[in-house]
Amino acid sequence: MIELKQLIQMMEKKDKLVFYDYLESYRPIDLAECVEQMSRTQQLTFMERIPVLLAAEVLEHVEPLLQYQILIHLQEKTTALVLNEMSGDVVVDMMLAIHRNQAARMLNLLPDDYREKLQMLMSFPEETAGSLATVDYIAARSMWTVEQTLKHIRKVGRDAEITAYIYVIGAKGELLGVASLKSIILAEPHVQLWEIIVEAVSVPAMMEQEEAADVLSRYDWVALPVVDTQNRLIGVITVDDLIDVMQEEATEDIQKLGGSQPLENSYFKTSVFQLYKKRIVWLLILFVAEAYTGNVLRHYEDTLSEVITLAFFIPLLIGTGGNTGTQTVSTLVRALAMGEVRFRDLYKVIRKEMAAGIMTGISIAIIAYARAWILGVEYDVGLVVGITALAIVLWASLVAAVLPLILHKLKADPAVVSGPFITTLVDGTGLIIYFTVARIVLSL
Amino acid sequence: MIELKQLIQMMEKKDKLVFYDYLESYRPIDLAECVEQMSRTQQLTFMERIPVLLAAEVLEHVEPLLQYQILIHLQEKTTALVLNEMSGDVVVDMMLAIHRNQAARMLNLLPDDYREKLQMLMSFPEETAGSLATVDYIAARSMWTVEQTLKHIRKVGRDAEITAYIYVIGAKGELLGVASLKSIILAEPHVQLWEIIVEAVSVPAMMEQEEAADVLSRYDWVALPVVDTQNRLIGVITVDDLIDVMQEEATEDIQKLGGSQPLENSYFKTSVFQLYKKRIVWLLILFVAEAYTGNVLRHYEDTLSEVITLAFFIPLLIGTGGNTGTQTVSTLVRALAMGEVRFRDLYKVIRKEMAAGIMTGISIAIIAYARAWILGVEYDVGLVVGITALAIVLWASLVAAVLPLILHKLKADPAVVSGPFITTLVDGTGLIIYFTVARIVLSL
Repeated sequence: MIELKQLIQMMEKKDKLVFYDYLESYRPIDLAECVEQMSRTQQLTFMERIPVLLAAEVLEHVEPLLQYQILIHLQEKTTALVLNEMSGDVVVDMMLAIHRNQAARMLNLLPDDYREKLQMLMSFPEETAGSLATVDYIAARSMWTVEQTLKHIRKVGRDAEITAYIYVIGAKGELLGVASLKSIILAEPHVQLWEIIVEAVSVPAMMEQEEAADVLSRYDWVALPVVDTQNRLIGVITVDDLIDVMQEEATEDIQKLGGSQPLENSYFKTSVFQLYKKRIVWLLILFVAEAYTGNVLRHYEDTLSEVITLAFFIPLLIGTGGNTGTQTVSTLVRALAMGEVRFRDLYKVIRKEMAAGIMTGISIAIIAYARAWILGVEYDVGLVVGITALAIVLWASLVAAVLPLILHKLKADPAVVSGPFITTLVDGTGLIIYFTVARIVLSL
Repeated sequence: MIELKQLIQMMEKKDKLVFYDYLESYRPIDLAECVEQMSRTQQLTFMERIPVLLAAEVLEHVEPLLQYQILIHLQEKTTALVLNEMSGDVVVDMMLAIHRNQAARMLNLLPDDYREKLQMLMSFPEETAGSLATVDYIAARSMWTVEQTLKHIRKVGRDAEITAYIYVIGAKGELLGVASLKSIILAEPHVQLWEIIVEAVSVPAMMEQEEAADVLSRYDWVALPVVDTQNRLIGVITVDDLIDVMQEEATEDIQKLGGSQPLENSYFKTSVFQLYKKRIVWLLILFVAEAYTGNVLRHYEDTLSEVITLAFFIPLLIGTGGNTGTQTVSTLVRALAMGEVRFRDLYKVIRKEMAAGIMTGISIAIIAYARAWILGVEYDVGLVVGITALAIVLWASLVAAVLPLILHKLKADPAVVSGPFITTLVDGTGLIIYFTVARIVLSL
């Protein structure tokens, strides 16, 4: 970590070279964290004093709105230079975060062709592959020799974000193939690119970002070209952006499985009111659904007053049902997200969960019976508790196995079937199972 | 997807070139999926007939044990060639999956220096950075010129897995810095490497793989060098392996939050008995803990028989407490895993959760009171239900906010505090809150 105070002291030194030397040992992301803690004046002084390339890299690591606040207050010449050096996908994110008039003014600082490319990327909806793409890649033509290509790379490579691959495009901009920088270096200078390119795995611009992440991780590449409906190369997604997507998706799934709507920001950047809004929706839905347990209990009021000891086991039995359901649902929602399980596996999943359910159910039933015995209730109440435990575990496993797969099939989000959702569902139905078993066994 | 039948037909063609042409359009991972479905004889014929480089790439995508089964049955010459072309980290995984005598026999097929490097990687415990590293990187010396380096790359590059970076090492093998292939191509031929290298972000071999993944994703690099305690370069981890680590860690957290021990394999590769073992541990612990609710209810048996309507609201109130706790705990466990929240934020987290808890608690209390009114119970029982709802929501939020942070501080896994764990904890304690409020308000 960098000392903020020291950084500011160094920044105010007259001798720029001493300051540059000092900066050398730090990485852009670390400097960015310092910038976030500076006052606005300090931020502007810092940005004006550091080299343009570094300024662009540092800015890439701060929040879009702060990027804008800093860029708009710099001298216009600096703004134009920094903006031009920043990675295309980051600039697009910033433009989309600010007002369209502000964005238009910013875009005007850029060269015409670059501005047009960015405007096209800005047209893709959020969470699509297109919205993640950057235009800072290197394109080449299939007739070029390796020597020509290397010359071209030396000319344009400094501004490119992606240099691990060279994309070969045709006359209309269509993607013909890809050559890794490695393969270019290994090839003889006179070889033409069409001799060494391989077919590129590309994704359509409108594909969901989550799917694009799956494609990338399947083929172990570090960049993924994005094409339009005519197979024209629009941009390239880098692996670090797709890593962020994977992490975000996992975070969302975890929050949804916990019975909350996913937060749009990190924990501390989410206000209390937003936290409330994200949570109260499901809490209220589940509360209303759970209220149904009151009706079930009132329905069995006579049975309950006759054998009040039955009440002792209500939380235990429905709690265990909820726990079993939560275990199953979290395993299956994740397996669906990772593509390990599909709807066509429904029968296999049910068979597996029922087999595991019988084993856990019997284990729990034995302990439940023992528990009833320890609590000193009548023998037949113990029997009711044991049988109910087995039945509830099986029921919870079945519901938790089937619902996520059906939702997935219906193109709905399986993570809607959260732990709290299953718990609530099993609570009401579990009580019905309990009292039905009780009435039969105790002949009430 | 490739047609397995067609592939086998093509493979049996006399003319190798026709077969090679046919193979061209498929990627190794797709071919690997076909190989998994072939009979052993077909697998061996396929491997002997395809080019060695492709054979190595295809094998990299099948399970370690199948890799071994195929390699051991090929002609020894082919085995040696294929093994030598396979990526170092994959070979290490395979060696660790088979018996040490079998591994020793395999390793003997490799050149001495390569074997020694692999044996060193094999010595690192599972889930460490060292165990993920591959030795197929390109190293260079700081005095080399760009021209010399490019020549070296042309000589050894074909076998290297990582070519995006060239690692510059000193006389004792210590890591001095790193130069991207891009920076080498952009530099003048006579420039020496020490002029263009930058300090490398490296990780120690014994670092946990999860932490290494965090480092990589922070700095947006595509490969991460691994060093020993003397800063000597041991190997390099590629981004695709760290993506797998991130996905595995998220899967484990989701399963743990669902109240199950994490599975070691994917869903369908986990046997029913393993599924049972992973689930029953927590189910039994929670069952025993939940059994405590029986004691609480028996303790308040008199209150309960006096006002039997109180029983109607038991599942509703403790269910809502469990739901609130599950929401909070899943948000915080993920925030801890992503490094957004630390123990030193404890006070901030409590304040935030209490503020959100008061808002959700009051909302729920109002609905709870209305629910009691609809169910037609006495006015004061409704009051008890409303007050309890607020108290339980606050209590659940507090416990769910504090416990994961404390576990994290104690270097234990915060995901142990799963949804079912919090639900169980809140069930027993929630009942005590309920009956305490009832006794006070109803003056029992």
